[in-house]
Amino acid sequence: MENIKVGIIGGAGYTAGELIRLLINHPETEIDFVFSTSNAGNKISKVHQDLVGSLDLKFTDTVNPDVDVLFLCLGHGNSVKFLSNNAFSKNTKIIDLGNDFRLEAGKVFDNKTFVYGLPELQKNDIENADYIANPGCFATAIQLALLPLADKDLLNDDVHINAVTGATGAGTSLSATTHYTWRDNNFSYYKPFTHQHLGEINQSVKQLQNNFSSEILFMPNRGNFSRGIFATVYTDFEGTVEEAKTLYKEYYKDAAFTFVSDDNLHLKQVVNTNKCLIHLHKHNNKLLITSIIDNLLKGASGQAIQNMNLMFGLEETTGLGLKGTYF
Amino acid sequence: MENIKVGIIGGAGYTAGELIRLLINHPETEIDFVFSTSNAGNKISKVHQDLVGSLDLKFTDTVNPDVDVLFLCLGHGNSVKFLSNNAFSKNTKIIDLGNDFRLEAGKVFDNKTFVYGLPELQKNDIENADYIANPGCFATAIQLALLPLADKDLLNDDVHINAVTGATGAGTSLSATTHYTWRDNNFSYYKPFTHQHLGEINQSVKQLQNNFSSEILFMPNRGNFSRGIFATVYTDFEGTVEEAKTLYKEYYKDAAFTFVSDDNLHLKQVVNTNKCLIHLHKHNNKLLITSIIDNLLKGASGQAIQNMNLMFGLEETTGLGLKGTYF
Amino acid sequence: MENIKVGIIGGAGYTAGELIRLLINHPETEIDFVFSTSNAGNKISKVHQDLVGSLDLKFTDTVNPDVDVLFLCLGHGNSVKFLSNNAFSKNTKIIDLGNDFRLEAGKVFDNKTFVYGLPELQKNDIENADYIANPGCFATAIQLALLPLADKDLLNDDVHINAVTGATGAGTSLSATTHYTWRDNNFSYYKPFTHQHLGEINQSVKQLQNNFSSEILFMPNRGNFSRGIFATVYTDFEGTVEEAKTLYKEYYKDAAFTFVSDDNLHLKQVVNTNKCLIHLHKHNNKLLITSIIDNLLKGASGQAIQNMNLMFGLEETTGLGLKGTYF
Amino acid sequence: MENIKVGIIGGAGYTAGELIRLLINHPETEIDFVFSTSNAGNKISKVHQDLVGSLDLKFTDTVNPDVDVLFLCLGHGNSVKFLSNNAFSKNTKIIDLGNDFRLEAGKVFDNKTFVYGLPELQKNDIENADYIANPGCFATAIQLALLPLADKDLLNDDVHINAVTGATGAGTSLSATTHYTWRDNNFSYYKPFTHQHLGEINQSVKQLQNNFSSEILFMPNRGNFSRGIFATVYTDFEGTVEEAKTLYKEYYKDAAFTFVSDDNLHLKQVVNTNKCLIHLHKHNNKLLITSIIDNLLKGASGQAIQNMNLMFGLEETTGLGLKGTYF
Repeated sequence: MENIKVGIIGGAGYTAGELIRLLINHPETEIDFVFSTSNAGNKISKVHQDLVGSLDLKFTDTVNPDVDVLFLCLGHGNSVKFLSNNAFSKNTKIIDLGNDFRLEAGKVFDNKTFVYGLPELQKNDIENADYIANPGCFATAIQLALLPLADKDLLNDDVHINAVTGATGAGTSLSATTHYTWRDNNFSYYKPFTHQHLGEINQSVKQLQNNFSSEILFMPNRGNFSRGIFATVYTDFEGTVEEAKTLYKEYYKDAAFTFVSDDNLHLKQVVNTNKCLIHLHKHNNKLLITSIIDNLLKGASGQAIQNMNLMFGLEETTGLGLKGTYF
Repeated sequence: MENIKVGIIGGAGYTAGELIRLLINHPETEIDFVFSTSNAGNKISKVHQDLVGSLDLKFTDTVNPDVDVLFLCLGHGNSVKFLSNNAFSKNTKIIDLGNDFRLEAGKVFDNKTFVYGLPELQKNDIENADYIANPGCFATAIQLALLPLADKDLLNDDVHINAVTGATGAGTSLSATTHYTWRDNNFSYYKPFTHQHLGEINQSVKQLQNNFSSEILFMPNRGNFSRGIFATVYTDFEGTVEEAKTLYKEYYKDAAFTFVSDDNLHLKQVVNTNKCLIHLHKHNNKLLITSIIDNLLKGASGQAIQNMNLMFGLEETTGLGLKGTYF
Repeated sequence: MENIKVGIIGGAGYTAGELIRLLINHPETEIDFVFSTSNAGNKISKVHQDLVGSLDLKFTDTVNPDVDVLFLCLGHGNSVKFLSNNAFSKNTKIIDLGNDFRLEAGKVFDNKTFVYGLPELQKNDIENADYIANPGCFATAIQLALLPLADKDLLNDDVHINAVTGATGAGTSLSATTHYTWRDNNFSYYKPFTHQHLGEINQSVKQLQNNFSSEILFMPNRGNFSRGIFATVYTDFEGTVEEAKTLYKEYYKDAAFTFVSDDNLHLKQVVNTNKCLIHLHKHNNKLLITSIIDNLLKGASGQAIQNMNLMFGLEETTGLGLKGTYF
Repeated sequence: MENIKVGIIGGAGYTAGELIRLLINHPETEIDFVFSTSNAGNKISKVHQDLVGSLDLKFTDTVNPDVDVLFLCLGHGNSVKFLSNNAFSKNTKIIDLGNDFRLEAGKVFDNKTFVYGLPELQKNDIENADYIANPGCFATAIQLALLPLADKDLLNDDVHINAVTGATGAGTSLSATTHYTWRDNNFSYYKPFTHQHLGEINQSVKQLQNNFSSEILFMPNRGNFSRGIFATVYTDFEGTVEEAKTLYKEYYKDAAFTFVSDDNLHLKQVVNTNKCLIHLHKHNNKLLITSIIDNLLKGASGQAIQNMNLMFGLEETTGLGLKGTYF
């Protein structure tokens, strides 16, 4: 089989950088072009500087409309704009890492139907899709904590979520809260109870449990680390912790990257991997579910490659056997 | 007035180190002795190495029973043992930084009644006390978030708390989770819903609101920073956020170190100070209260000095005009 | 005595913030105004957010020309501009934290002679000065490592210096190298052998040892921490390490903040203090001198207050009894 | 070809953990056993906890003497002891990650001759070797900075080296200087001018330039990061920087992982990769060479796999196409 030809749009950001890092080691792909108007003509390794010695390619401001797959790594809201102004072959599959097409209301654009790309929710739909809306990072971690319960209609009370994300979650832009002297040894929250990923989360939960009517109370925090999401979720659950484990292990038995751990979790168990690890704990009537991912991999670029693999009929884990950075 | 003569027991730990740092700049005290059996004979600046040039005193394994005030900085449970084996003048006031005497059930020992030393709860009692049980760090941050509501009998639903503490919270002992390579860029929780400070918190809440019968659900986390506690607390509240602010500002109008901020908080606003900052936010029917302290100062040694000041009739802020380490 | 009235120019930066933090606890001063055109009218605690509860003052864009002392906290090169456009009483003493007046060639401006404000070099001159050029941060750490040798004409071979500074050394401006995700767990150098502080260093060394003709090879590095400078310096030295210690201790016997440590040093021994700690080690014919300071205190605002104290005849350490942030 | 059967001795440490992470994704190997007396019977993922979901193997205290290759990950000095007490097939190749066999004087043991495993120095010897002494981490970074000069007999003056290593360089053992609260935001040096890797470095330099007689002055530092070595090296060099670049690029033209960068370097360009990046800069008569590696990969386990690949006739980069952790 010929290599899959890949185009990347928005090539200077974090998620594009991660895609490039993954694709240069992926055995079935070749990077055709990396589009970045602000960096056109510069070597990619001038921006993603760890790629010195790995890649000679330059950024371009011209697209090849015949690539096999296109990854959109644009600021939220910009994918619609880009696709309106740039035509691609009807054979070009598209994976959007932004949030333009994630919700039911916006999933059809220009006769293209974007499938929500969470393999643990709907692997078959992804395998048959040409257009994918790749989930948000918090949304991924939190859904993977909730889906096995929703799948059994067991989410019947308020869901309390506290999650912490690293500084890469804020993107490459410079701001007061990404300045080293501010963030070093600091902690804060933002958008309490109103984070934009709540839409995706509610949508997927209701897809599995259509009578879900409780509230999801989500506190997102900024941690003083670079990568990763650590989410704790609790809600009422009548069964024992063993029953919960059985239920989760059954739900994830075919998952390529999501595993239930019998031991307490800490964030670095998943950093620089495409894994999600889940741990379950029971206290009185509350089930405490911990879910950890790397926000740039399972929460963005790694999941995008996983979706690509599924769409092209490859082994789901191809190119994703990553060495973690446990320390 | 003559200087207050101070003795410190358990001198090699973090809280003793902080006490020494505070006392050498306190205008009304002198350090009489610092007791540490394992370090007796060594210069204090060999252990608390930032004190080179500041202090020539050595650790001792002999106590002076006639000091004016004694600070106990021992592992939890060891204060009772120490006081059983060492007699002090009946004029010696005692401030225990451990948890031996914090709860009603254990507050009387050897005819000494230990008063719970949270000035925002009971300043008058502290002023008249000879023996103080200094509050726990998480307990301080969380009580300061809850007391104004309890004071008005407004805690009528479950209270959800998520708090993160720095590595100094675990003490000087070496363990897997305090190793740099483990903790760097990491995040984890411990003792979910069962942290030992819940006893103090419930006791103080009920002292103000004796009909309190809801559950306090407390998730304690380990952050990858050295100092500080960042606590978010939410519960049902019928009034507006402005009403909440008024209520909190009124409750803390005479507090020397606890202030209500109109702006969002981040942890470093209080690091290396004795402050507690509180912020209030309303979402639907939930009041979100953020409370931040330095775990070693307002959460331990700074509050101990504050209590000492009150017990000796000094201005409450004496020696506590600290330059923060905002960055 | 009445309080010293203080004006601060360039009030939104790190060094101004540190000055304010020091001055609010200084017993002999009051802050008259803090000038910042970009923040005029805003509360100071909106920018220096740890000051919530400590200070109600607002930034102003109007100066009071009759303050007793004026601190200039402007970008390098901007002090000349500011003083050209703003007149002050001839009784107003001025302390410039920039580099405009540090070198012999530029020390006289508008009939004002700026004295180089390193107390360990020339305390008497400072006591008699009305205008002070406050030394640079790297320059302070490195001079304090070299002056005792220069004082005895013992710098007779190349001097090799490697020093690391924290992110506050780069100021508040946002840039690629101050972004958290870049700097976290990173290390780099800049301006190899050509750092702008070499001028000051050479000038002071020659002031003490006028035959100095060797090369100073200085490698400045960016560390992934917020505060502090750790400098190692080595050069040929014929005597023993004990002779070196004697020489250094003699030179610093009247220094208020500079101390010779018999033990190895690590940076946090001085963080959030005005100290400089020095350690000496001998290997073959090389004397290794380690010098550590807090770049914002002994390397900037703390030393500025020390100079102010000397200029106004106060005890040199007034307001500088700081609690370090050892952890 | 059948998979290469691998045994690992000393399986609970950092370098063994990294070997396992590399080997589970290496297409030509299988892990036969991981020996750890203290953990025998436990799942490997209980110690290397990021491997949950990746590996079901348990530690063992029994060796299989017929493995194809054996990696020794023991404390320095313990490889001789282990090999004295455990016999292996004469077909078993051995790669020792300790320092027992690195120096000429100790390279023959039990009729086995250990070849120093730095591919950039002697790839052919490694390809033909059965026993490899894998280089030290600092030694790797520093040799790669010096070999091109030594190769042309151009090291004719003192060599000044300053290098910083991460906390993983100190191993898994708990100590004061690996405690999070000590190391966070801290900096220090150790073993000034006497680090044990100087022996290897001098040996390799003299292997290429047998008239080398200058001094190597090496200052090793502890940084507050987890992984990586950042080394700056300077010495006299008569040519231009362009000549130096040509010389280095020529020397490394066949190197699989060592590249010359035209731009300044920062440590995270190599973290979690097997690369070494080199940058050259000229100031007056000094050539400044910067060399960066990941201490656990190119400085230990990655280089060990690289050596294994060469010994077994595999493509040198097999299993080493690693996604870096640039942020």
